Amino acid sequence: MYTLYGYPKTRSVRIAWALEELGLPYNYHLIDLKMGQHLTDEYRAISPAAKIPALVTEEGALTESAAIVTFLAERHGMQEFIPEPGSFERAKYEEMMLFLTSELEQPIWNLAKHTFALPSEQRIDRMREVAVWEFQRVLPVFSAMLADNEFVCGNMFTMADVIAGHILAWAKGSKLDLTANGKCENVAVYAQRVLGREAYERAWRNEVSHMSK
Amino acid sequence: MYTLYGYPKTRSVRIAWALEELGLPYNYHLIDLKMGQHLTDEYRAISPAAKIPALVTEEGALTESAAIVTFLAERHGMQEFIPEPGSFERAKYEEMMLFLTSELEQPIWNLAKHTFALPSEQRIDRMREVAVWEFQRVLPVFSAMLADNEFVCGNMFTMADVIAGHILAWAKGSKLDLTANGKCENVAVYAQRVLGREAYERAWRNEVSHMSK
Repeated sequence: MYTLYGYPKTRSVRIAWALEELGLPYNYHLIDLKMGQHLTDEYRAISPAAKIPALVTEEGALTESAAIVTFLAERHGMQEFIPEPGSFERAKYEEMMLFLTSELEQPIWNLAKHTFALPSEQRIDRMREVAVWEFQRVLPVFSAMLADNEFVCGNMFTMADVIAGHILAWAKGSKLDLTANGKCENVAVYAQRVLGREAYERAWRNEVSHMSK
Repeated sequence: MYTLYGYPKTRSVRIAWALEELGLPYNYHLIDLKMGQHLTDEYRAISPAAKIPALVTEEGALTESAAIVTFLAERHGMQEFIPEPGSFERAKYEEMMLFLTSELEQPIWNLAKHTFALPSEQRIDRMREVAVWEFQRVLPVFSAMLADNEFVCGNMFTMADVIAGHILAWAKGSKLDLTANGKCENVAVYAQRVLGREAYERAWRNEVSHMSK
């Protein structure tokens, strides 16, 4: 059985969500960020960058949420959740994953870094404004890629929607405007659609339930 | 035949390098960044984010360099350049790709953004110091992941080495110290190994040759 190392309100919910979509049972191991449990040598042996999430499989540990959800779909998806390797559709899926993680997510991550995630001496107040500006600049690109599709890779829900959905939930939580002043209504509608999935709700509820233990 | 839209000293050399490794012929279409050719509606129809590179295939256009090189290896690699889909090795390949593009590359990209790539009113001088600090922080993580392997996924050269090699060449060009004050000698040795490949030299020479035309 897989073991997910996570913490509520981090990228670990992406893996929990993917596991729930696939109907796979898993152990959940809470890494208490506030107690600095991610900085121990024990956790670094699993996640060299000391980042959350990590998934421990029978063959070893994996990090990088977008890589993990792709792996899970390849292993267990059975023609669902991910296009066939070698197809043009698969290339578009990979393109979307890279766009999401290196373009759409980075401004939100920079906003978090310069609010709390970097050591205080490395934070720059004005970077928060630049991050908001960069998010507003990239959002119309995402909106154009999404167009009037139901999901980011067309009419099939894929693991790229797990990553996109979580990024948009995070953006909303960071008080960013998902519509870019009304120009990108399709993004807000899409976010509501994917974040309304039951598997997502089961995923975050399970994470939160481990907090009180 | 594939058509690569590129410009020297950008991420397009990654695609040219991958095509050269695979022995595939391709058309090269120079997008003159200095003339603003990437900002035209014509180019945005190919690359919605107005970014370089893009690869036009018979089935449509692709962007995101890491996605493109993965696609090329899946289509033409024949057991070389990329591990088998569904294998744990493939998951580690994807993990490395995501780490490279969202962790190792971002500080270098931030350095470029706050030096010239952002509109001047969005640039913050001090961000350059923070970017250098972040690069020095992430480099030992990459060094630990690389360990004493010949390539980033072990002893097989893969498309992840194309991305890693280019990021390190870019870092060197940005005057960043690849050894983190001598602590990460394996990274510098690795960079020399992959950047010494003939396919890389053919790739960048071809790009440069289009400049004078």
